Amino acid sequence: MREAYQSDLRHIVDDLLDMAELVSTALADATRALLEGDLALAERVITADPHIDDRHLELDAKAVELLARQAPVATDLRLLVASLRMSSSLERMGDLAAHIALIARRTHPDAAVPEQFREKIARMSEVGLESLKGASEVIANRDLAQAAEVEKGDDELDELMLEVSREISSAAPGTFTAGQVIDMTLLIRFYERMGDHAVSLVRRVGFLVTGDAMDTLSEGVDVPEF
Amino acid sequence: MREAYQSDLRHIVDDLLDMAELVSTALADATRALLEGDLALAERVITADPHIDDRHLELDAKAVELLARQAPVATDLRLLVASLRMSSSLERMGDLAAHIALIARRTHPDAAVPEQFREKIARMSEVGLESLKGASEVIANRDLAQAAEVEKGDDELDELMLEVSREISSAAPGTFTAGQVIDMTLLIRFYERMGDHAVSLVRRVGFLVTGDAMDTLSEGVDVPEF
Repeated sequence: MREAYQSDLRHIVDDLLDMAELVSTALADATRALLEGDLALAERVITADPHIDDRHLELDAKAVELLARQAPVATDLRLLVASLRMSSSLERMGDLAAHIALIARRTHPDAAVPEQFREKIARMSEVGLESLKGASEVIANRDLAQAAEVEKGDDELDELMLEVSREISSAAPGTFTAGQVIDMTLLIRFYERMGDHAVSLVRRVGFLVTGDAMDTLSEGVDVPEF
Repeated sequence: MREAYQSDLRHIVDDLLDMAELVSTALADATRALLEGDLALAERVITADPHIDDRHLELDAKAVELLARQAPVATDLRLLVASLRMSSSLERMGDLAAHIALIARRTHPDAAVPEQFREKIARMSEVGLESLKGASEVIANRDLAQAAEVEKGDDELDELMLEVSREISSAAPGTFTAGQVIDMTLLIRFYERMGDHAVSLVRRVGFLVTGDAMDTLSEGVDVPEF
């Protein structure tokens, strides 16, 4: 019984890692669809998102059921509460990847990303993927060693977002259409939010390891002023 | 003891309602600061946001402590789990209001909102406030009667966001500067996200009343494609 309970808790962590894997695939595919104008790939990301939503749903149901059945305390309780939060963050990251794919689909066959920004968008995606990988390691090993990397990735995403928006604002009038500016503004925000959620994930593990409730402050992490 | 526990549960609901009140004030003030170019008011919204974050933190700590001490089941357990989620949504809504105020501050003394969009932005704010009011009533009375109104408000916010972005895209080249388009794109998204979070709040109460875990799907509610 006790063993079954411990394995249930392990399964919840495995489910979180599976969700992170699904989100990584969605993000990588969405960026490829966006930069290579791959409509079929964009469609695949969009149609796959509900599966991530379902995983979120299942994980939450499991966590609530364990809370009811086992009345966990201390670390186990914190694990379940943190898992509820982490699954929400991962589900949201899946939505963001799907939104990137939606923009790729809507703008096809035109490129949503002007030539001069392709490199920065590719980098934002890369940092997002590194942050997801780092967060997954933190979740898997409850080792905060990678946490600083994830925070640094978030800072880089903030900076890249600012750079792109400054370049757009300071470009000669008529350089970009209003539609291009709208899409780029949304795209850089979607990528930047990935970093916020990755930070939120590692802070929840911090909460788990240290019992420090301050992790909830990570909800406040957000787009810098630009 | 049992009575103390029941009053603890009631306090958590009261705390959620207080948070909703703080968010309503922040949203109303942020919109006024934005449309009237009131720099002092924008500053007030920005500096007040950490108080909402603190309330979120306190509420979560209380909920986790009750989970640990009382090992609630059934409705009480669902109330606590839903409260953890609702406080996150409210905290996030506070951030969105602060982001609106940040744009008001950054663009001052210029108006971030072009004349032709003032009415639609005012309406988006109004719908956001009505949705918060409706969500608060749903939370206070566990009566889903208002839920449909909140969902309708979210649809109106989606529609208003689409209308504004279409008007911007179809305007004659040079009608708006790239900076204006960036700010308007962010503003309509911030207001639109308020509606998503309000829907999320009422769906969590639905989860509470019905025990239907599908409420977690509301995490997926988001900006429509435009």
